[in-house]
Amino acid sequence: MFEPLSPIVWRDGQVEIIDQTRLPLELVLIKLRTVEEVWEAIKTLKVRGAPAIGIAAALGLYLAIKDSQAADKKGFQTELSRAADYLASSRPTAVNLCWALQQVQQAVGLAATDDVSSLKEVVLSAALELRAGDEKMCRDIGCQGAPLLQDLEAVLTHCNAGTLATARYGTALAPIYHLAARGKLLKVFVDETRPLLQGARLTAWELQQAGIPVTLITDSMAATVMARGWVQAVIVGADRIAANGDTANKIGTYGLAILAREHGLPFYVAAPSSTFDLSIATGEQIPIEERAAAEVSCFGGQPVAPQGVNIFNPAFDVTPHRYITAIITEKGVIRPPFEANLPVIMGK
Amino acid sequence: MFEPLSPIVWRDGQVEIIDQTRLPLELVLIKLRTVEEVWEAIKTLKVRGAPAIGIAAALGLYLAIKDSQAADKKGFQTELSRAADYLASSRPTAVNLCWALQQVQQAVGLAATDDVSSLKEVVLSAALELRAGDEKMCRDIGCQGAPLLQDLEAVLTHCNAGTLATARYGTALAPIYHLAARGKLLKVFVDETRPLLQGARLTAWELQQAGIPVTLITDSMAATVMARGWVQAVIVGADRIAANGDTANKIGTYGLAILAREHGLPFYVAAPSSTFDLSIATGEQIPIEERAAAEVSCFGGQPVAPQGVNIFNPAFDVTPHRYITAIITEKGVIRPPFEANLPVIMGK
Repeated sequence: MFEPLSPIVWRDGQVEIIDQTRLPLELVLIKLRTVEEVWEAIKTLKVRGAPAIGIAAALGLYLAIKDSQAADKKGFQTELSRAADYLASSRPTAVNLCWALQQVQQAVGLAATDDVSSLKEVVLSAALELRAGDEKMCRDIGCQGAPLLQDLEAVLTHCNAGTLATARYGTALAPIYHLAARGKLLKVFVDETRPLLQGARLTAWELQQAGIPVTLITDSMAATVMARGWVQAVIVGADRIAANGDTANKIGTYGLAILAREHGLPFYVAAPSSTFDLSIATGEQIPIEERAAAEVSCFGGQPVAPQGVNIFNPAFDVTPHRYITAIITEKGVIRPPFEANLPVIMGK
Repeated sequence: MFEPLSPIVWRDGQVEIIDQTRLPLELVLIKLRTVEEVWEAIKTLKVRGAPAIGIAAALGLYLAIKDSQAADKKGFQTELSRAADYLASSRPTAVNLCWALQQVQQAVGLAATDDVSSLKEVVLSAALELRAGDEKMCRDIGCQGAPLLQDLEAVLTHCNAGTLATARYGTALAPIYHLAARGKLLKVFVDETRPLLQGARLTAWELQQAGIPVTLITDSMAATVMARGWVQAVIVGADRIAANGDTANKIGTYGLAILAREHGLPFYVAAPSSTFDLSIATGEQIPIEERAAAEVSCFGGQPVAPQGVNIFNPAFDVTPHRYITAIITEKGVIRPPFEANLPVIMGK
């Protein structure tokens, strides 16, 4: 109770994942035994969320080379590289996927051994370390964020920045799980998060699963929930944070931040410090992906809008830093002015 | 081109309606020949929108009594009253439906004739007058609102306060049709309006049909559209307006009003003067209907949220008057302070 499931674990020499395409209707665990099965699971969104995809791919690398017959390190590395290219092709735009594959390959490159069977162990260790590192980071975000929420009754969140997107615990939901495990049950209001409904399908499911009281609303109901005084803070994840604190996150976040300000509620962003992109001065430089019109115009294959209607479907928006009360990272809580306070935390 | 269709007309002794359950996929016109067919059309939401339902019911009354064999006025009124009760049962909570039925019955009561065949004509005239009165009122709202929008490039609207909800033209969309007919084409951004998607299904359809450039977005994208400077005003309808200008309208309106204020955009409410409920001092006294959880948790019969999850599904919200730039009625435009300026317009 109150402990979230992990969406991806290494068990009995297999990658065990929660099939997220079956949520929220049923909890189906799948065992992935081969690199091809891992590729397919990533491709078909059975596993999703940047950190979770990276971990799955890293473990997939081990499945690819565990029976390698390579004669030497060079041959082994060639096989590893080929498997990494294959896995990277499952979701070509996923930055974290490539990063995770590189981490494992680097570990092999740096290993002080030429023994192929030892190198196989290096691959597995590197992949498991990635997984453990992500879980620890999420736990640390939970620990850092908990004091900000511990005296509240309820919070509002958007999209899924929870256990299902990470090794475990998530980012925005980590402080909520942290407090729940210590006997302080926050109520959570969840925006359904159109168009892809990650809030309804994933966040509502994982909180319910963990025994945390959750109320689902449509995105358009957030202002009413705030006006009634039912939540005392908003907490969301982040996809990318500029040096000045401007934050790109799932579409709808920016509007929520304005509503929070208008109702006098703190607006928290929870994200690993790796989410900061210091090469970007402000949010204006963050490119906003526009996605297929069909995400808005169809629902379960059924059209809900007139044929040929013009649709604007940005995947993200940028919340200017002035609306953000604090950014919760695994290293500490950063408060405004973010530009000045960021280096202090990042240097830790 | 640029002239919206009417969802309900009297043609060749029949009530011809647009079957709104077939929108946005196809434009299907249905001819209703009997009071039973009218009852069924209202019951199954083929016709919707308070004014449109009232008009359909009034015309349905005529279909019910046009072949009456009543011997005298008293007998005729008994038949009429029975038919009115029957029609009222199609949607028991629709206030406008009952009001329209009463209007027709009153016209018969006041008629200075006992001749049954003349009384039948009174019923038809009263029903057609209701229809014409509603169309004129909408046209007047369009005329009153047009000067506020005529210099803009684009506006944002929410839900369906358009031709499909009224005899013709609608309320919030009336100024847009008014301007379009005079060669000034505004672009319109439309919130899809979860949970029932009236924006996607109805507003996007009717604007597209009339040749007005429309862009559909999810409710959560409104803030981004405003931040990009793509719209210069927001215009919505109203379900009920308190004496101080506080306005109840489709859920999501209140949040939009806050976003408009934050982006320096005017926020207009367009509604017939009959929408004012002067017995209510402020919006706090307006009861907010909560609707079935399944509207949020299911989509086309398909569940999109975990079973048993708690859902909050208010049908309306209340926008405090301080966020409203002006209220556009058929009698004129009311600006703050609404409490003082309202009687001036209402007295006209």
